[in-house]
Amino acid sequence: MRILVQKFGGTSVAGLERMQMVMGKVKNALDSGYKVIVVLSAMAGETNRLLEMASKWSDAPNRAELDTLVVTGEQVSISLFSMLLNDNGIKARSLLAWQIPITTNDDYGNARILDIDGAKLRELLEIYDVLVVAGFQGQTPAGRITTLGRGGSDTSAVALAAALRPDAECEIYTDVDGVYTTDPNIYGKARKLPKVAYEEMLEMSSMGAKVLQIRSVEFAKKYNVPVHVRSTFSDDPGTLVTQEDSSMESVLVSGIAYDKDQARVTLRKVLDKPGIAAGLFGPLADAGIIVDMIIQNTSSEGHTDMTFTIPQKDLNRTIELMKKVQADLGATELAYDSGVVKVSVIGVGMRNHAGVAAKAFEALKEEGINILMISTSEIKITCLIEEKYGELAVRVLHDAFNLHSQDYEG
Amino acid sequence: MRILVQKFGGTSVAGLERMQMVMGKVKNALDSGYKVIVVLSAMAGETNRLLEMASKWSDAPNRAELDTLVVTGEQVSISLFSMLLNDNGIKARSLLAWQIPITTNDDYGNARILDIDGAKLRELLEIYDVLVVAGFQGQTPAGRITTLGRGGSDTSAVALAAALRPDAECEIYTDVDGVYTTDPNIYGKARKLPKVAYEEMLEMSSMGAKVLQIRSVEFAKKYNVPVHVRSTFSDDPGTLVTQEDSSMESVLVSGIAYDKDQARVTLRKVLDKPGIAAGLFGPLADAGIIVDMIIQNTSSEGHTDMTFTIPQKDLNRTIELMKKVQADLGATELAYDSGVVKVSVIGVGMRNHAGVAAKAFEALKEEGINILMISTSEIKITCLIEEKYGELAVRVLHDAFNLHSQDYEG
Repeated sequence: MRILVQKFGGTSVAGLERMQMVMGKVKNALDSGYKVIVVLSAMAGETNRLLEMASKWSDAPNRAELDTLVVTGEQVSISLFSMLLNDNGIKARSLLAWQIPITTNDDYGNARILDIDGAKLRELLEIYDVLVVAGFQGQTPAGRITTLGRGGSDTSAVALAAALRPDAECEIYTDVDGVYTTDPNIYGKARKLPKVAYEEMLEMSSMGAKVLQIRSVEFAKKYNVPVHVRSTFSDDPGTLVTQEDSSMESVLVSGIAYDKDQARVTLRKVLDKPGIAAGLFGPLADAGIIVDMIIQNTSSEGHTDMTFTIPQKDLNRTIELMKKVQADLGATELAYDSGVVKVSVIGVGMRNHAGVAAKAFEALKEEGINILMISTSEIKITCLIEEKYGELAVRVLHDAFNLHSQDYEG
Repeated sequence: MRILVQKFGGTSVAGLERMQMVMGKVKNALDSGYKVIVVLSAMAGETNRLLEMASKWSDAPNRAELDTLVVTGEQVSISLFSMLLNDNGIKARSLLAWQIPITTNDDYGNARILDIDGAKLRELLEIYDVLVVAGFQGQTPAGRITTLGRGGSDTSAVALAAALRPDAECEIYTDVDGVYTTDPNIYGKARKLPKVAYEEMLEMSSMGAKVLQIRSVEFAKKYNVPVHVRSTFSDDPGTLVTQEDSSMESVLVSGIAYDKDQARVTLRKVLDKPGIAAGLFGPLADAGIIVDMIIQNTSSEGHTDMTFTIPQKDLNRTIELMKKVQADLGATELAYDSGVVKVSVIGVGMRNHAGVAAKAFEALKEEGINILMISTSEIKITCLIEEKYGELAVRVLHDAFNLHSQDYEG
């Protein structure tokens, strides 16, 4: 049995005409000899409508009840789409998470998948040609409804394909037609990548978040499920997100990521003694604020400067927290700046090639772009720069690594 | 453990303010020492909205998928209401039919309850003070979602109370404040009944259908669950629907029912031979058309006239079917009339009292109202009359039996 998991997002199911387009994709897969598992999101706007309703009812809605509320959006999508398939002579039925089941932990609103009953799915695929599964949802071992977080339908699709290895392939349909070397809205020379490694996709969070939920990529990587990202509205081949291979390693850089929702905070003359970092970052972690880049200057006369970046939306809360700990840390000054952006050069090929960082810094220098902070990983170099240079930096780096002309076979 | 099942319909949950009013009823019950099971319908208009959506998607929607679609209405109600209770410090959670489970047969759209897990409910009531259950829905033994038919939430409530006998009582809240001797819109002298027998309630279908789903009354009768019909919008005591008792039997007549959606069909000179009735009513039964009153004249020269009544909405289909069988039956003429109404005199007291029918006929005669057809049961006398006399007949009969002044203690 060859199984194709096809996931369609909210804009792809918003209305009868869109669903008929989706049915065309399903028919193509059936004609190619696949049994098909279709994973659907709620119609565009529906989840927000339900969340707004909840916020009228409660300032802090019970999280389990909130999940029970919002999953109705997907339930509407899958039942309507199943009606449509049946009307067109296709043997199909809808499946809610609890009917499979897709078991998760009980972290309501952001649950993690623990198990999927693949045997049950195979049984049903003996009877039906298409199973229409509600994305985004799961159930706890105790039988309560959970959701997987925003964009969770991607994870549902990848997890279903993982549960049906090695027979299943996975396609994620979106309103873009693949993963690009950078955001085409920022640089027209951006080129669609035929293939991208899981690790690269994870690092491309700023670009990737628009295309795939990060957690779905982690899942795909963990279970080695190749994910084909395609457009609902065209027949273009899209981008395959897959395991690193030699053709990828021959390419130095595969993309330039850009994240403009950054803020930078500096505490000057912090006492340089053990436990300082914990005293500083502990309260932020407790508040659920994710710290990204951190720089600690070398100590001078028993004091040091600490600089770190956070998402812009958390800046006010961070300042409040820092004011509380400032005295304990002995810091003389608290400075912050929300006019900064993050530009990253990404590529698994970096592992085997020296000189990528030097080339990136040189390219930025030539345009007079000052680098405020730097952080690196095995496959990524990230520079924090002033906001006004952000888009220029993307174009400069894209050109420096010839991303408009490279390809994986080259 | 004393348990109160409280059911609230669509108008009672349509919006936050209405739900706050419902919460008041729940709090009263908690203050009186009950654990509470709240059964909710979808917000008024929501089920119709979903059905209209389905009719855009399909001319004949797959019935299992249609049930999966429409139950989302109740899911929204119970999760929002549970949020509200939790916000107000009440230990509550929502329950979908499959989470209990409420098991039904697989007659999608009109399923019958087979079983409810009362032990699971008792366990949950040890943890929670209020369980908020989705009305109208069930699941098949194979785990697919079903619905119980329009008004099915009444049946859900009664069935839940039945599953928790003898500890549970049942209240059905509606937008009327009880069961009346007749429709107060037709006759202002109509009086609210403090008590009514299950059998009477069943016969009062035309009045009762607006207050309680008929099937819920059958369920209540079968398991002897007293059902208290009350108004969400007042604290009036309402009407208790219960087992027949001696106080009821002392009353000749408890109500006058009125049904104006009737049509009459006559086939003249039907051959009077065995199998004729089957040949005539078989096709109607196959088409799902419910025949109510039937009159067959005594035979004359081997022929007879057959007259029957059907719901007005089925008249056109009935005429088509009768045209097909007319020749086989040898009938010379097919006549029909949709300008007729049914007026019924109802009371369990009739069983032990003669003369009720004579009194009813006499009252109608005095006003010059011609009776077209008559049918009787142990506790009901029904007359078919011309539509123009319908409301007059209700008033005349109500007066004839002094329904405005009687009471059960009298």
